[in-house]
Amino acid sequence: MAQDDALVIFTPSGKRGRVAKGTTVLQAARQLGVDLDSVCGGRGICSKCQVAPGYGEFAKHGVHVGEDALSPINAVEERYDRIRGLKPGRRLGCQACIEGDVVLDVPPESQVHKQVIRKSASERVMEMDPATRAVYLEVAEPDMHEPSGDFERVSEALAAQWGITGAVASLAVLGQLQGVLRKGGWKITAAVHDAGTGAAPRVVAVWPGLREAPLHGFAIDLGSTTIAGHLVDLTDGRVVASSGLMNPQIRFGEDLMSRVSYAMMNPGGAAEMTGAVRAALGELGAALVAEGGVDAAGVVEAVVVCNPVMHHLLLGIDPVELGQAPFALATGSAQSLGAAEIGLGGFAPDARAYLLPLIAGHVGADCAAVALSEAPETREDLSLIVDVGTNAEILLGNKTRVLACSSPTGPAFEGAQISSGQRAAPGAIERIEIDPVTKEPRFRIIGNAHWSDEPAFGTPTITGICGSGIIEAVAEMRAAGIVDASGLVGSAEQVGSARCLPTGRTHEYLIHDGTATGGPRITVTQGDIRAIQLAKSALYAGARLLMDEMGVEKVDRVVLAGAFGAHISPKHAMILGMIPDVPLDQVVSAGNAAGTGARMALCARSARRAIEAQVRRIHKIETAIEPRFQEHFVAANALPHATDPFPELGKIVTLPEVSFNAGGGDGGGGAGGRRRRRG
Amino acid sequence: MAQDDALVIFTPSGKRGRVAKGTTVLQAARQLGVDLDSVCGGRGICSKCQVAPGYGEFAKHGVHVGEDALSPINAVEERYDRIRGLKPGRRLGCQACIEGDVVLDVPPESQVHKQVIRKSASERVMEMDPATRAVYLEVAEPDMHEPSGDFERVSEALAAQWGITGAVASLAVLGQLQGVLRKGGWKITAAVHDAGTGAAPRVVAVWPGLREAPLHGFAIDLGSTTIAGHLVDLTDGRVVASSGLMNPQIRFGEDLMSRVSYAMMNPGGAAEMTGAVRAALGELGAALVAEGGVDAAGVVEAVVVCNPVMHHLLLGIDPVELGQAPFALATGSAQSLGAAEIGLGGFAPDARAYLLPLIAGHVGADCAAVALSEAPETREDLSLIVDVGTNAEILLGNKTRVLACSSPTGPAFEGAQISSGQRAAPGAIERIEIDPVTKEPRFRIIGNAHWSDEPAFGTPTITGICGSGIIEAVAEMRAAGIVDASGLVGSAEQVGSARCLPTGRTHEYLIHDGTATGGPRITVTQGDIRAIQLAKSALYAGARLLMDEMGVEKVDRVVLAGAFGAHISPKHAMILGMIPDVPLDQVVSAGNAAGTGARMALCARSARRAIEAQVRRIHKIETAIEPRFQEHFVAANALPHATDPFPELGKIVTLPEVSFNAGGGDGGGGAGGRRRRRG
Repeated sequence: MAQDDALVIFTPSGKRGRVAKGTTVLQAARQLGVDLDSVCGGRGICSKCQVAPGYGEFAKHGVHVGEDALSPINAVEERYDRIRGLKPGRRLGCQACIEGDVVLDVPPESQVHKQVIRKSASERVMEMDPATRAVYLEVAEPDMHEPSGDFERVSEALAAQWGITGAVASLAVLGQLQGVLRKGGWKITAAVHDAGTGAAPRVVAVWPGLREAPLHGFAIDLGSTTIAGHLVDLTDGRVVASSGLMNPQIRFGEDLMSRVSYAMMNPGGAAEMTGAVRAALGELGAALVAEGGVDAAGVVEAVVVCNPVMHHLLLGIDPVELGQAPFALATGSAQSLGAAEIGLGGFAPDARAYLLPLIAGHVGADCAAVALSEAPETREDLSLIVDVGTNAEILLGNKTRVLACSSPTGPAFEGAQISSGQRAAPGAIERIEIDPVTKEPRFRIIGNAHWSDEPAFGTPTITGICGSGIIEAVAEMRAAGIVDASGLVGSAEQVGSARCLPTGRTHEYLIHDGTATGGPRITVTQGDIRAIQLAKSALYAGARLLMDEMGVEKVDRVVLAGAFGAHISPKHAMILGMIPDVPLDQVVSAGNAAGTGARMALCARSARRAIEAQVRRIHKIETAIEPRFQEHFVAANALPHATDPFPELGKIVTLPEVSFNAGGGDGGGGAGGRRRRRG
Repeated sequence: MAQDDALVIFTPSGKRGRVAKGTTVLQAARQLGVDLDSVCGGRGICSKCQVAPGYGEFAKHGVHVGEDALSPINAVEERYDRIRGLKPGRRLGCQACIEGDVVLDVPPESQVHKQVIRKSASERVMEMDPATRAVYLEVAEPDMHEPSGDFERVSEALAAQWGITGAVASLAVLGQLQGVLRKGGWKITAAVHDAGTGAAPRVVAVWPGLREAPLHGFAIDLGSTTIAGHLVDLTDGRVVASSGLMNPQIRFGEDLMSRVSYAMMNPGGAAEMTGAVRAALGELGAALVAEGGVDAAGVVEAVVVCNPVMHHLLLGIDPVELGQAPFALATGSAQSLGAAEIGLGGFAPDARAYLLPLIAGHVGADCAAVALSEAPETREDLSLIVDVGTNAEILLGNKTRVLACSSPTGPAFEGAQISSGQRAAPGAIERIEIDPVTKEPRFRIIGNAHWSDEPAFGTPTITGICGSGIIEAVAEMRAAGIVDASGLVGSAEQVGSARCLPTGRTHEYLIHDGTATGGPRITVTQGDIRAIQLAKSALYAGARLLMDEMGVEKVDRVVLAGAFGAHISPKHAMILGMIPDVPLDQVVSAGNAAGTGARMALCARSARRAIEAQVRRIHKIETAIEPRFQEHFVAANALPHATDPFPELGKIVTLPEVSFNAGGGDGGGGAGGRRRRRG
């Protein structure tokens, strides 16, 4: 009994239905709502619509697929296979026609909205639904009898061939269009941006003929100190190149608050900083394109995440309001604008830029990106997520509720304001252990795989202590009884170590003396301890405020985000009382979660909508006006804490009950009672 | 019988309805859909909502209005009257409450969508419905407990206080917003642009507090030779200032085609011309603002009309495609963009620009503006509308159908390519009469109210002949028998005038010899006649083509548009056969119809929608590919015409039947058979 239609089953989606015999696989996919890619619109030239037919018995689907289930390989496919090569068993979906019941597998690379698991960066399932896609168009030629503009005919082709209606184009694109249409013989590839927000789709770039190269985008994490960027393939989310540079605004001030001051004190200062950061973005973009070896004109989008001060400076908005209560943002909403407006010129002529929403006056789009990446609102357990930088952004939440705040930790965790502190660079001490009996230290430096007490360590130049090193040093000193719970460094006599040396009325602990060979003398001073206490108290107090608001005394897990978070030793962080007490295996590093969030927003419009909605739901706490912040801050000054118990920490470390207070003040200025400005 | 509600009748709209007593007049107007203006949103400070209540018997409306129909004048009104002054009998609609049946007249200045009859420019009813309006906002202050951006709170105020939802702002506006909000104490005036096309409303400028000055816009007619601009008050359509300057692109080529050639021959030439014209627009805008004595920041919009080549050059699009068949436009649709993108920077920070749609490759937005202004589609009678410049744009139509074409007349009508030709300027001959018996001329020059044969004429310097002068000269020569129907100038002997002088194989007619006093010798040469014949043949042939397409042998009226059209003598134009034969009183001048159309589009969004729709309906004829164009062109070479009868002309003028052809060719190159390029 010959039938006029046939059963088609697509895998892995499982979508199935009957289609008329003679229907192409691509048409069938569209009829059944199967996600099968096509750039050329079914003209047999782009090969994006490849499928792998299965033959034989498929008991699971209750279908037998005969050898003649698809039409024979045709001339277009033969030619494509000869010139470009087609994987064995593959067919072009726009050429193969359905002639009988068939099971067709859509390989991941043929899916538009593919989910790509990236091994390298974060093992994350990256959903692909970028705002900008490439479409191949066959455009009607101009006709003197029916005069119409070239762009109007491109619009008609977009509507007729791709269902994209009401497209617009910038002057930059209009200026290129006529040449491209004629060079391509009225066949072009257009990159079309559709934000999915109801705004008109934009043709952001055009190329003659079929452009087969993928489109690319930038995911940029614009930090106060460094600017990191990824060049991302918009077909599969792959990171093609990564690069970073120092934020040139550093010359106007190391921390954010000094930049706000610069803007306040110098007429035109804000505009100067805007110019500097936009130039840096342009430079970073050019470097990424060069490193990735891709066509700059194919970079169609950028996503930028940053804190509120950087956000305002990037957009050309004076940040002074962010320097004083009530810390009012000029705008906090997600921004969609031209990439060239923020310095990213030289790419696709109308390349777009998207800035994630800000959460509050001190809680930025970088924190929103972390929230997007870590998605605490999807979990049953209660996560405390800490992105440590010059400010710490803190999120606390689970399925019921997510809270956020920012806490002014200052730059101590980054090695600044520390006597021997330095940025993480070769020669910097990054790990340290102190023998609790001998009080002798051993350490490792960046760029050397050996401990300092191993012969293979050699005699490298030791330049200072980086952020993670200073945390370990202070924590080890506390664990070895060199520092007491109040943060006082003991004398040589009290501690029983000649490494405890007097400096005025306080003491310092000598880690390494390189002066004999012209190197520095590296110590941890009482002032260093105080700086770390200030920073960690602020961090802990912020976390506690969120816990108060949530009505909990403990959290289930702690996520350390940021480049710095990736290098912190959880045990040492907990000895210091930087983070609330949790089982050590529940302290995880999320790597550069802000950068991951930026990539997610670059790769999928749904991620943008998700974080825009989530930011509205997140409850913001302004630490500056919470009376309990001060109380928590003072109590958190002790190592690990004056009042909060740390039972999980107690299971793995016993901290010595020492006290070096001779009754003469705290020596070096107590951390409590001081409240610093953000930076 | 006390009632809780009262009858309210608004005039002149006649809208009526019952409202609860105690309702303010402004609220009542909104409930009943009456067009009553308000900038301050009913706060008693802007006075835009003034009404004039009527008291007593209104038989027509069947209502008696008592003295207590409105609440007594309150403190706000008293204060307003004391400080600003309120016209007698006027009340503030936002303060006066309805307490009984009442008839309220809304004076024109209190209507948003007012219809304003402008006496000066064109006696036209100018509908007021501009895309940009000013609104007064009271914005919530920032709250650290509920952090949100300043712009987000402005958006909320726009939605809550004015029903304007989803507004966006450019970086330029965002950069000003925080300062303005604080300076105004969270009360601001915002200029909001809503194109009415579904695109998001844009906040294009902000001011602290209530800004009472009107918003302004530019209406710009960008011609190949001159750029004319009006500064228009967007509340009443009044022209506040007018100014013009030479198009600086003239240095790249006098006519359009030589500019297209310049773009073709010189790399970067198009961009150079784009830069020049944008700079000129900026200069014109600054001059208008200075002349009008208005605040530049209050200029929120510009409407530009121009021909396709100027359009493309203004937008930064290479015009080379417009220089060759099929004369393809890059885009013909109406353009909405930032005014600064086309050189109009320095006004409202996000001032907008609107370019009317182009009709075809040779029929521009200037012609669309003429179609908007003259609206032939609204008339029963058949209008031929001619906008004469370097190209003539021609429209033919009535209620059934409108046709359009462009015809390459060349610059002869503007005095170029004429031996004694010059632009219209003091000293140029603009009117001329030749005595049919004596063959002696008399003339008038620009800047002198007297004829040259009057004693009061004096002895001014006579510099040349302008466009309207050369038309009159040739027509008078034809009427006086100095030139025959074929366009040949007769010899002194043939004509019987010593003013006919030999020049090589042809003759010229001496109008004025100023050489004795160091002035020029002004003649009409055989070459001048040929140039005028070429121009008028092209114009007439274009009109005939449209008449063919319409299937008519005559038109009902002829409208001469353009600055030049305003100065042409209809009788002389008809003697030349420039225009088809119609009763002389049916030849009317429309003045600067393109400029009027630009002003209409500036003042009312509905005018934009109307012309966008009308341009799609207009049937375009491309003269370059119509075989009959050549035929019409040759037949139109004769003065007035070789074959078409001119019965209406015959009623007022009898042209002498002379012929000066000695059989030796046409002497000087016949116009027929030559086909020039457009310019």
